[in-house]
Amino acid sequence: MTPITARTITLTARPDGWPKPGDFRVEEAALPPPGAGEVALQMLWLSLDPYMRGRMNAGASYAPGVALGQPLPSEAVARVLHSEDAGFAAGDLVVVHDFWRSHALRKAGDLRKLDPAEGPIQRALGVMGMPGLTAFAGLKHIGQPKPGETLVVGAASGAVGAIVGQIAKAQGLRVVGLAGGADKCAYVTGELGFDACIDRRSPDMAAMLAAACPKGIDVYFELVGGAVWQAVLPLLNPFARVPVCGTIATYNDTAPPAGPDLSGALMRTILVKSLTLRGFIVSEFAADAPEFRATMAGWLASGQVRYREDITEGLENMVPAFVDLLAGRNFGKALVKLAD
Amino acid sequence: MTPITARTITLTARPDGWPKPGDFRVEEAALPPPGAGEVALQMLWLSLDPYMRGRMNAGASYAPGVALGQPLPSEAVARVLHSEDAGFAAGDLVVVHDFWRSHALRKAGDLRKLDPAEGPIQRALGVMGMPGLTAFAGLKHIGQPKPGETLVVGAASGAVGAIVGQIAKAQGLRVVGLAGGADKCAYVTGELGFDACIDRRSPDMAAMLAAACPKGIDVYFELVGGAVWQAVLPLLNPFARVPVCGTIATYNDTAPPAGPDLSGALMRTILVKSLTLRGFIVSEFAADAPEFRATMAGWLASGQVRYREDITEGLENMVPAFVDLLAGRNFGKALVKLAD
Repeated sequence: MTPITARTITLTARPDGWPKPGDFRVEEAALPPPGAGEVALQMLWLSLDPYMRGRMNAGASYAPGVALGQPLPSEAVARVLHSEDAGFAAGDLVVVHDFWRSHALRKAGDLRKLDPAEGPIQRALGVMGMPGLTAFAGLKHIGQPKPGETLVVGAASGAVGAIVGQIAKAQGLRVVGLAGGADKCAYVTGELGFDACIDRRSPDMAAMLAAACPKGIDVYFELVGGAVWQAVLPLLNPFARVPVCGTIATYNDTAPPAGPDLSGALMRTILVKSLTLRGFIVSEFAADAPEFRATMAGWLASGQVRYREDITEGLENMVPAFVDLLAGRNFGKALVKLAD
Repeated sequence: MTPITARTITLTARPDGWPKPGDFRVEEAALPPPGAGEVALQMLWLSLDPYMRGRMNAGASYAPGVALGQPLPSEAVARVLHSEDAGFAAGDLVVVHDFWRSHALRKAGDLRKLDPAEGPIQRALGVMGMPGLTAFAGLKHIGQPKPGETLVVGAASGAVGAIVGQIAKAQGLRVVGLAGGADKCAYVTGELGFDACIDRRSPDMAAMLAAACPKGIDVYFELVGGAVWQAVLPLLNPFARVPVCGTIATYNDTAPPAGPDLSGALMRTILVKSLTLRGFIVSEFAADAPEFRATMAGWLASGQVRYREDITEGLENMVPAFVDLLAGRNFGKALVKLAD
C-alpha cells in the first residue's frame, strides 16, 4: 500500500454564534497500515447535517460536545483501499459513521457495504441514509399521519423535509411546506408535489400558512423552530403530533432571544389542544433501517420520491459549506465530494 | 313537590387577570317541576377545579369559553328531590356534570348513582372522581412510570398531585413533590408518603429539587408551569415523559411574562433529550373510569391512598374559594358544601 496522507478537520475553538474558519484546523498525518480486521478507507462523500452544530458546543446536545482538537462526526461513503478483513476487498464501497476527514482506518464491523448497481452511492448519505430514515421513522412512530390530515414541514427542500413531505403525500395527506425563497418553493410544489409551499421569508408568512391549511394542521414535523414554529402553533388541531427533529433557526443563538417569554403560552397550548411534542434522534429507530431502505428503494424506483443534492467539492470547502447549510443557502441534501 | 328556588352563579364579565366578585352574579329562579325522564336535584357538594379559570376566558381553552350570563361548569354530588324517571327515586344520591348552582332539573341519563355505603359521597368529586381519574389515566397512558424511576409533581398536596404521587409511590418510583409552605410539605411526606417535598416558595427551590432528584427526573406530571417547570426542565432525563395536565401558575396572566423568550430553549431541550410532552384532558380517558374506580376503591380501603379535603360552606362563598384555589391557599381537594 502506497503511503497515504489523511487530512482531518478538527475543532479548535467552540463557535460563539455562527461557526467561522478560525474555529477549525486541517491536520495532516500519515495513515498507518491496517491491522487484522481493519480496513483502510478513502472517503468519497461526506455528509453535512444541521445536528453537527450542536456537537460543536461544550454542553450536552444529543451527545457530549466534540472535544477541542478532535474531528467532527459525519456519515461517509468510502472506497476500500486495503483490507485486512475477509469481508472486504479493495475497491468495495461502504458507508460508515466517520468524521470530517479524507482517509481512515476502521474496523470491518463498523462498515456497511454498498452495491453501486442500486443507484448513486451518495444516496446512502441522503434519501437512502440517515436523513431518509429520520423522515421515515419520525413520521411513522411520532407523526402517525392519517389520510386526509394536513402535514406541515419547514426546510421543505432540504434533506429531511423533502422526504417527510413526499412520504406524507404518498399516504394521502395534504402537505404544506415552507422554504426560503421562490426557487425552492417552486421546486417543492413542482418537483416534489407538495400541495403548497410558503416562502418563510415573506412578511405575510403566518397568514399565508394559515390560508394554505384551511383545516388546520395535524402533523407538524419540526426541523426549524423560530418564527415558523410560532406561526404553526395557533394552527395546530386538537391531538396534533409534533415530531421535534431539529430547530435549525436557533442553533447559532448565543443567548435566548428577547421577550416576552412565550414558553408558558407554549405549555398552555400543549395542554388545551392535547398536543404531543416528542423529540427524537434517528438512532432510536435504527431497527427500522432495513424496512426503510427496502421501502425507499421502491419509492425511488417508481419515482414516488425525488431528491436533490447540493454538492460542494473538496474537504477544504467543508466549513463554508456547513455555514451555508445553517443559513439555508443549500438547495437539497448538503454533500461534500472528496474524490470520484 | 314544594316550590324550590334555585340559585345560580353566572359569569357577568370576563376576568382581567384574577377573578373578582364583580365578574359574577347570583341569580334566583323557581325550579319548574320535572318532566318525563327528568329528575329534580338538590346539589350537596360542588367541586372547584383549576380548569374552570380557562372557561372564564373568551378564547378557546379545552372548550369554548362560557358565554356571559351563563353559569360555570362544576362536577356535583346531588340528592334526588323528585324523580319522573323509573331509575331514580327521591333520596337517591348521584354525581353529575353540572354547574355552579344549588338546584337543577336534569335528565336521568346524565346521572350516575352513588352508594353512600362505599364511603363519603364527596369523594366522587375528588379521589374517586375527575381529579382521581385525571391522575390515574394521565400517569398510566402518558407518564408510563417504571419501578426505580423518579417522578416529580407540583401542587403535591392538591387534588390531582397528591394522587399522582401516591400511585407512583405504589408502583415503586422515587416520588418528589412541590407544595406551597412547610405545612403542606410536611403533609406530603408524612401523610402521603412522598420521598421528598420541596417548598415551591423557597428561593433555593431549584437547587433543592436537584438535590432531591439525584438520578434526574423520568416523569414530570405538569400541573403548575412557571418557575417549577423551569426548575424541572434541566433535570429531566433522556426519554422523560411529561403529561401536561395544567399550568395553574399562568392561568391569571394577562400577557406573556417579560423575556428572554425561553420557548426556543424549551423546544431544543425537547429535541436533545428526546422528551415527550403530551397535553391531555381527562375526558379523553373516560373509558378508564370503571377500572379506575375499582382500583382506587381498593387503594382507599387498604390505606394505600389517602386524601384531604378543603371544604368551603355555602354557594355564596364559591367565588372567593375559587380565587383561593388559584392562589394555592387551599389545602387538599377544594369542595363547596351546599347542604347536608
